[in-house]
Amino acid sequence: MIPRMPSHAAPSPGSVGVVETQYLELPQPLKLDCGRELHPVRVAYETYGRLAPARDNVILVCHALSGDAHAAGISKTAPAESTRDGFAAEDRDRTSAKGLGWWDGMIGPGKAFDTDRFFVVSTNLLGGCRGTTGPSSTNPETGHPYGSDFPVITVADMVRTERAFLDLLGIERLAAVAGGSLGGMQAFEWAILYPDQVDTIVVIASTHALQPQGVAWNAIARSAIMSDPAWQGGHYYGSGRKPDAGMGVARMVGHMTYLSAQSVGDKFARRLQSSADVRYTLLEPEFEIESYLRHQATSFVKRFDANTYLYTSRALTYFDLSRQYGKGELVDALRPVRASTLLIAFSSDWLYPPSGSEDLAAALRVLGKDVELHVIEAPYGHDCFLLEEARQTPIIQRFLASRTSAMSA
Amino acid sequence: MIPRMPSHAAPSPGSVGVVETQYLELPQPLKLDCGRELHPVRVAYETYGRLAPARDNVILVCHALSGDAHAAGISKTAPAESTRDGFAAEDRDRTSAKGLGWWDGMIGPGKAFDTDRFFVVSTNLLGGCRGTTGPSSTNPETGHPYGSDFPVITVADMVRTERAFLDLLGIERLAAVAGGSLGGMQAFEWAILYPDQVDTIVVIASTHALQPQGVAWNAIARSAIMSDPAWQGGHYYGSGRKPDAGMGVARMVGHMTYLSAQSVGDKFARRLQSSADVRYTLLEPEFEIESYLRHQATSFVKRFDANTYLYTSRALTYFDLSRQYGKGELVDALRPVRASTLLIAFSSDWLYPPSGSEDLAAALRVLGKDVELHVIEAPYGHDCFLLEEARQTPIIQRFLASRTSAMSA
Repeated sequence: MIPRMPSHAAPSPGSVGVVETQYLELPQPLKLDCGRELHPVRVAYETYGRLAPARDNVILVCHALSGDAHAAGISKTAPAESTRDGFAAEDRDRTSAKGLGWWDGMIGPGKAFDTDRFFVVSTNLLGGCRGTTGPSSTNPETGHPYGSDFPVITVADMVRTERAFLDLLGIERLAAVAGGSLGGMQAFEWAILYPDQVDTIVVIASTHALQPQGVAWNAIARSAIMSDPAWQGGHYYGSGRKPDAGMGVARMVGHMTYLSAQSVGDKFARRLQSSADVRYTLLEPEFEIESYLRHQATSFVKRFDANTYLYTSRALTYFDLSRQYGKGELVDALRPVRASTLLIAFSSDWLYPPSGSEDLAAALRVLGKDVELHVIEAPYGHDCFLLEEARQTPIIQRFLASRTSAMSA
Repeated sequence: MIPRMPSHAAPSPGSVGVVETQYLELPQPLKLDCGRELHPVRVAYETYGRLAPARDNVILVCHALSGDAHAAGISKTAPAESTRDGFAAEDRDRTSAKGLGWWDGMIGPGKAFDTDRFFVVSTNLLGGCRGTTGPSSTNPETGHPYGSDFPVITVADMVRTERAFLDLLGIERLAAVAGGSLGGMQAFEWAILYPDQVDTIVVIASTHALQPQGVAWNAIARSAIMSDPAWQGGHYYGSGRKPDAGMGVARMVGHMTYLSAQSVGDKFARRLQSSADVRYTLLEPEFEIESYLRHQATSFVKRFDANTYLYTSRALTYFDLSRQYGKGELVDALRPVRASTLLIAFSSDWLYPPSGSEDLAAALRVLGKDVELHVIEAPYGHDCFLLEEARQTPIIQRFLASRTSAMSA
């Protein structure tokens, strides 16, 4: 039964409505790139739309570093559980206030990922802290949370988890795998690991390998967490302390890398907190941007696990298609791809610059693969991924209509 | 007597030779922008060249966030005292290994600031930790170090300190005030606070007000320090603990803002530490850039005081000529300037982008002031300030020759 929603939380037109995160446990141990096995593995997921009898209308949606399975609709659980602000789009308070999924603008009836046509599946990634097995899960060998005994995972491990999970749902083929940032990396891993099972991939604000500058910012964020004494070597669960301070700094670092100079300038300029003048204080925020960053840090540590941040950030920096599959050559790495590829990049995204998407497109073209690249001019940095939904929608709709059979079903 | 130098530390041609930092105490209490007074105030300084009888050949050199008074020559004290790596030019190990001043490439006989002509004076700024009074100095009211009881200072306070210090040396007029980054801010403050006493200013990779993005990165760096429990509210001196972890993160953040995407990519790419492959580790650095950043952090915390970092960073973000002197209008703020102004900016410097220098040049031209702007195309980000000395030298030499009388003396 769908509970009555307060009027301020009414579904927007095209909403998938009220949804609830579900859970499944994988029957087999998961073999990881690092050589270890993980068991049990639970996967948190949501689905939107209806699975076609031919089971040919499935889109897997993969989230970014701080997201979760709740990608669309209104969460049946507490609104505070929303990770719409998993990215830096927090000024759109409507989203988290209403418990909307992090990609609600893109998933629903008539939207980019049209639930009238497609059956959209969204999972929390391996290593997560929002229902899927991760470092805060119980280690069966000890009966305590893994902490830093959790194995170091890769994007490929995340994708193998998704593969095993979809087996449980009886889904073999995917009409599309879609995601931005780390989600786009997962889409490419799918196209390489399971080339015969993926019709298309939709890769937004992503890359074949994080740029060295991005590797550095991620390392700094992880250092901030691990150098917080409350991290306790990764075993802070149940200790009454957790590395909120370091995690807050990590979040602020990450947040700034999602914004462009222009977007920070447009939004905050150098406006002071006080209407008068500076107050000569070290401890208190003086500029609006300082106050904003502190707010980001405070709200993030409430909903996200520091160890998940560490493991996910590490996987993100490891991801490198050329190294993993091409002996250093991107073209060789992409040789197995059979999926049609849609790449969307944003002009002001300096963390995942358009050049990465251009490299991917060029390599796919050399191989004679089907690829489309769209570079959208927009000023919001990496955040464009979540802020520029209206401009992505027709591109994605046209791509899916022309490359998948489900649209004509 | 000049001690014998080991051969590997022989002065380069044009060196000012072996130098020693000296100290003077200001006779009067220093009135600060925050309303408080500071007394006593000691100033650490070095001088290079000879003061002309007419006392008209003085150049004041102002250092950046992490520098000190040792700007040129070979320090008589330990080579480890060098702050050549105050910026990100650490790969030029020759510098710190030999105890060279942080601007040794620019100050000396025949160099940009030619000590055959000019008497160059360099001080450690107010709030510093390298000899000038700062938060690690003894608070006369308590007999203990100030810590966070040190007053919050501004760039103008730094300049008033320099003014009072030069009075002690019997120097009234300056042929030039020169500096990069925070040093360039001090030069502008000089031109506004003491317009009749400054013939020229040489402002490199600097601005009239840090960009909002820079304000944010500075806030994050300070958060990293203040959220380290070892900071102890700023009173860590003598406790046996200091906020090295937070300071290390702050340094890594600062360091990355001094580099461009291209310079990080050219220098480190995605090269791994291990020649084989990734090692699936959270704790150990995997990429060369990670190892490099850790090294930066470790070496910085050995030589720099965290509270000085906090106070200097705060002053840097407060600095805003329009707010301070122009009721929001840059042109109005610059009205008092009488000094000829040389501005040098670097194309890849995203922390102090050329647009800031362009705004300054435009405002000065509106007022009919004498200004020259040079934007140098170079890929090293804000670091260009210290890495592109050869290309700055002729620009500065020509400017000083045409604007100051001392050159023809």
